Amino acid sequence: MSNTAKYDVLGIGNAIVDIIATVPNDFLFEQDIVKGSMTLIDQDRAQALYSSFPPATETSGGSAANTIAGIGSFGGKAAFIGKVADDGLGEIFAHDLRASGAAYEVAPLVDGPQTARCLIAVTPDAQRSMSTFLGASAEFCASDLDPEMIRASHITYMEGYLFDLDPAKKAFVEASEIARAAGRKTAITLSDLFCVDRHRASFLHLIRNSIDILFANEIELLSLYQTMSLDDALAQVRNDSGFAVVTLGEKGSLIMDGETLVEIPAASVERVVDTTGAGDLYASGLLYGLAAGLSLERCGELGSLAAAEVISHYGARSEISLASLL
Amino acid sequence: MSNTAKYDVLGIGNAIVDIIATVPNDFLFEQDIVKGSMTLIDQDRAQALYSSFPPATETSGGSAANTIAGIGSFGGKAAFIGKVADDGLGEIFAHDLRASGAAYEVAPLVDGPQTARCLIAVTPDAQRSMSTFLGASAEFCASDLDPEMIRASHITYMEGYLFDLDPAKKAFVEASEIARAAGRKTAITLSDLFCVDRHRASFLHLIRNSIDILFANEIELLSLYQTMSLDDALAQVRNDSGFAVVTLGEKGSLIMDGETLVEIPAASVERVVDTTGAGDLYASGLLYGLAAGLSLERCGELGSLAAAEVISHYGARSEISLASLL
Repeated sequence: MSNTAKYDVLGIGNAIVDIIATVPNDFLFEQDIVKGSMTLIDQDRAQALYSSFPPATETSGGSAANTIAGIGSFGGKAAFIGKVADDGLGEIFAHDLRASGAAYEVAPLVDGPQTARCLIAVTPDAQRSMSTFLGASAEFCASDLDPEMIRASHITYMEGYLFDLDPAKKAFVEASEIARAAGRKTAITLSDLFCVDRHRASFLHLIRNSIDILFANEIELLSLYQTMSLDDALAQVRNDSGFAVVTLGEKGSLIMDGETLVEIPAASVERVVDTTGAGDLYASGLLYGLAAGLSLERCGELGSLAAAEVISHYGARSEISLASLL
Repeated sequence: MSNTAKYDVLGIGNAIVDIIATVPNDFLFEQDIVKGSMTLIDQDRAQALYSSFPPATETSGGSAANTIAGIGSFGGKAAFIGKVADDGLGEIFAHDLRASGAAYEVAPLVDGPQTARCLIAVTPDAQRSMSTFLGASAEFCASDLDPEMIRASHITYMEGYLFDLDPAKKAFVEASEIARAAGRKTAITLSDLFCVDRHRASFLHLIRNSIDILFANEIELLSLYQTMSLDDALAQVRNDSGFAVVTLGEKGSLIMDGETLVEIPAASVERVVDTTGAGDLYASGLLYGLAAGLSLERCGELGSLAAAEVISHYGARSEISLASLL
């Protein structure tokens, strides 16, 4: 990745504000929420759930947007495409992303659904269970893409969650084609086990034809290839995208580049408070490192450090300047 | 305070959402912000300052509202009067207060200024410097008072910051008269050194005529009585309200009830992250204890524990159930 580029990484994903609260385990049971999952909800359910929610904190979220904010925090040149509404939460999202140093120029949606929000219930075991109302974010489509921005980016990184939306899925294919035609790299994260389940064939088609770098956690990768063997899944992804990054929770992560397999240990954390954003910030470190031409070991180390920072507090964005980790 | 009452404590104050970010010391210098102070700003300045603000977290605030949320968290019966607008931040404020268990029934302002916000810049020394746009909160006036609610509350607790607004100042006098006529107690916090400076005569008049319990930190109390001697200030407040609670930062606090003076040590904190809300949550513990008829020592201890919890993380509301401290 030696071509000069205006942006190191362009993220395409949901534009979401997180509403985070600590809840007892009983709350998940009462509200019929599956621990650790991400569930899509409609506006009525979002309002009803919010009414039952404890006092909360609002902070910008969205998986790829968290990753992009992290790249900005590392000092990388980053940009984001995703859709908010012209309301209070939309202003918060745009402010936080730009304040991280990232470019964000998508026009807010007028006269449509409200800005997306994700109600995150954090249990005492630091697990987060997410209920997401996509709102304006679901209106994202190919016409929101900025082809010049894609061509000007080393890596275009896309969030698997958007596969739940057909127009967004089409936009991914288009973005990948634009990036590759310009000699740039494409990356995708599988985002969520259930999302992989819902869209396995489409994911595989995109990965085989248009993706250079695959991000997944272990269970998402196993589900994608419907195998119980990580070795088997890695052998398959070696043929499909050639390059994969697999996060293994507290066991660390694996980076596979063709025949090369690098094991990365997790960075130590004094106290895990909230695992929200761990995978997103790991991706920040890794993508920042790849765009900067660092070794795979160093890329993985930056990912581990960024993930460790974000799980040591509430919220899915770093509280410190990640450049201080360099 | 043995009369049965529907509410232990009713708070009257600003209805504000805090926008909190960590900043380097240079940021305060560049933005001409006095460290540790609270400065009132207008809407234009609020927008300009927000544009320069780092990525932030939104969480409900307001001094008396923080105290009331804390009393709810202790399991006390609490209520709040203060004004938001019918916008996104207003919804967040109302939700968080009600979710803490407090009653909040004031109608949001329509077609007026936006919900109040406080831009809180936290420096690496855990000091917070606040720039507050009062917006809808400044529209609070006597007609927003609910006399039945005041009569139904053991203690009506008022926030000194509202003294910057003439209609609110009048509302305080009216609220005090309603409370006292019903045989209830009144309390006020001086809130801020500069606020005391701006309104010394009005504060003294109210305290001498209508206040049973005065909350202040050391410097606010010294400023109120324009003396350098804490003993001298305490002698004066003994004549004026008879009961005073003086917070001394890491030295703890003093509770003075007529001739009785109780010294309360500060509770230990592993790492001070953000001192926002320390005084507010101290007041939660103290007022909860007074309404429950606990000893002064125990009231102070609850105040110290609640303050220690809130300064160990970002934000001015407790992250745990304060009832677990009992």
